[in-house]
Amino acid sequence: MEILQSIAENLRRLKTVKPLIHHITNYVTVNDCANMTLAIGGSPVMADDIGEVEEMVSFAGALVLNMGTLNSRTIESMLAAGEKARQMGIPVIFDPVGIGATKLRTITGARIIREIRPSVIKGNMSEIKMIAGFQETIKGVDSVASTADGEQVAQELSHKLGSIIVITGKQDIIAQGDRVVRITNGHSMLSQVTGTGCMVTSLIGCFCGATDDYFTGAAAGVMTMGLAGELAQHSLQTGEGVGTFRMRLFDAVSTITPEIFMEAGKVSNV
Amino acid sequence: MEILQSIAENLRRLKTVKPLIHHITNYVTVNDCANMTLAIGGSPVMADDIGEVEEMVSFAGALVLNMGTLNSRTIESMLAAGEKARQMGIPVIFDPVGIGATKLRTITGARIIREIRPSVIKGNMSEIKMIAGFQETIKGVDSVASTADGEQVAQELSHKLGSIIVITGKQDIIAQGDRVVRITNGHSMLSQVTGTGCMVTSLIGCFCGATDDYFTGAAAGVMTMGLAGELAQHSLQTGEGVGTFRMRLFDAVSTITPEIFMEAGKVSNV
Amino acid sequence: MEILQSIAENLRRLKTVKPLIHHITNYVTVNDCANMTLAIGGSPVMADDIGEVEEMVSFAGALVLNMGTLNSRTIESMLAAGEKARQMGIPVIFDPVGIGATKLRTITGARIIREIRPSVIKGNMSEIKMIAGFQETIKGVDSVASTADGEQVAQELSHKLGSIIVITGKQDIIAQGDRVVRITNGHSMLSQVTGTGCMVTSLIGCFCGATDDYFTGAAAGVMTMGLAGELAQHSLQTGEGVGTFRMRLFDAVSTITPEIFMEAGKVSNV
Repeated sequence: MEILQSIAENLRRLKTVKPLIHHITNYVTVNDCANMTLAIGGSPVMADDIGEVEEMVSFAGALVLNMGTLNSRTIESMLAAGEKARQMGIPVIFDPVGIGATKLRTITGARIIREIRPSVIKGNMSEIKMIAGFQETIKGVDSVASTADGEQVAQELSHKLGSIIVITGKQDIIAQGDRVVRITNGHSMLSQVTGTGCMVTSLIGCFCGATDDYFTGAAAGVMTMGLAGELAQHSLQTGEGVGTFRMRLFDAVSTITPEIFMEAGKVSNV
Repeated sequence: MEILQSIAENLRRLKTVKPLIHHITNYVTVNDCANMTLAIGGSPVMADDIGEVEEMVSFAGALVLNMGTLNSRTIESMLAAGEKARQMGIPVIFDPVGIGATKLRTITGARIIREIRPSVIKGNMSEIKMIAGFQETIKGVDSVASTADGEQVAQELSHKLGSIIVITGKQDIIAQGDRVVRITNGHSMLSQVTGTGCMVTSLIGCFCGATDDYFTGAAAGVMTMGLAGELAQHSLQTGEGVGTFRMRLFDAVSTITPEIFMEAGKVSNV
Repeated sequence: MEILQSIAENLRRLKTVKPLIHHITNYVTVNDCANMTLAIGGSPVMADDIGEVEEMVSFAGALVLNMGTLNSRTIESMLAAGEKARQMGIPVIFDPVGIGATKLRTITGARIIREIRPSVIKGNMSEIKMIAGFQETIKGVDSVASTADGEQVAQELSHKLGSIIVITGKQDIIAQGDRVVRITNGHSMLSQVTGTGCMVTSLIGCFCGATDDYFTGAAAGVMTMGLAGELAQHSLQTGEGVGTFRMRLFDAVSTITPEIFMEAGKVSNV
């Protein structure tokens, strides 16, 4: 299938380009995001002081913004770095962690989306529906978010924002305007390890830092974690649990090949 | 033994309730606390900005406050979240890391205890004796802390504060007024991994987020880490050290069962 | 060889002294630095609030300053803790992460070096050349940094600053005035794990916290990570990647012995 070949090709390109991925992210999973970036072949840099983020992002292949542990200091840094990236044509990957849970997250997420127009917005179903919902509200129309299925929400939101929309879950959905794919790799144990969502965002950043086709870049990032989850779970022996599983995720990502994508990747057009 | 059955029952309840545990904690061990919360069956959220902590804690089953890397910004957030939790009847589990080491820690710890009246205060012997000591000082009485044994300190402090007092060490002590138990599970390698104390506090938070009996909840959290230490150490092979041990702690917690508590738990009334 | 015996002897001393190592470091690799400190036999404390760093460092055997995720709040804490350490004769180990990448890092690094005069400055080749370069510039002399080899840069910079200079890379160089050694332990996989550089700095802090001979202390820290990289890589089996490698680094450091230094350490005078 064509997209699977593009995904495999993206991995080859990533290994050559070794893109620098600037993260402004939370302090809970930041180490995992750095190690995941290295494991797939990128180069991570984490810097969040307002005094250096614009300079730092100007060297980067992509900017990852993650709201996991928002605070007033880093919100300004995210906006400044995002604006600089936007001006320079550097892709911004946005993970609106917990949007809707508190006013601070909702307002900040809305502001980042409005001001930065991220290339890719990645969330779980409830986060993306929240964004779709307040977009609807802004336009004075009842939200379709609560009833629509994921594909429809992602597609409509992508049209409205001009961003690629990624919804992660049992099935992952990636939409860019009318183009929508579904990825069905993964394993339920991924939800028992903190930060696997954040790591997917970092992986998307790595792929998008090495290609201009952010749609297949996003698909490649999502599929990498799905396959890693399958491989890690498959390797477990009696008595091994989430600790071993987590370690093996990094093993799997660091040894993944284009051939593994071609053989085990499950992606379909919607 | 009755308490062992209550502990085992607490685990069953935790797996059903899947409580959300709001942490305001240090940036050193925060990832481990999140993963430990997931491993036992809870759901972690870390949020520390003053602009959202009151909203966030209102959804939580328990609030964990940990002074590991105190700073002026998060102290205010701890107090605000703690106050909200107190008002709503949400249990607050307090880990006064390093209290006594610096004035900032001593003053902050004292303020949290006085203003929030945590449901559970968990520390090592010197931390708890420090708290017992300044309580004594406040009352103009010579401290008994330096000469008394752990059980006595814990019991008296519990009476004074109305909090459950947990002292961790070779033997763990849990006191609620006149009710005192001693737990003797554990392994010395636990002290060679950073954050095992913080993780115990998170585990206590998880159990207390799923039961109203915080005394057995605290005992369950303490015993979980003790048993995990034993299981992890037992699994080590030649050449394996603290890296493997640390990973296996998470394996053990994620696979622990009520039956393991009943078979291997070592708890006695004092 | 004499230095190898000193290194081995340093490990024996470290295990006895168990020095407290105060870190003001980044939030990306801080957990690894704490665990590495414990693995080799030290005792880590992380504290960065201006209200307590001077008190905290006064108990410490060494102070580690690391610029990985600089911010305006922690810069002041680094300078205050560094000044206190300098006054008390406590060794300061400085890791100028990313110096040269942004103005904030360059200015802060220069300020720490000028005001604190660290006992040991540890960086990769480009970081150390950056420091050598602006030292030259300050003196109105063309920089030799771009053409000189590492030994020469390290030696000249050490003479100028009175600090021990460590350059890490395929070969590690340690210089104190005219005394220069080269260490050739290590494995390329070390560069695929985030924070191995930060962890070397912590290890140097541990050794320097247990001896007055900071030169062999620095050499011991560098060699420990090199040997751990070799041992970890050697242990890998088919399908294991950077996740397992990273865990085994901690296994190796926690089980390293003076005998392993004597047998496998590769150090030569330059």
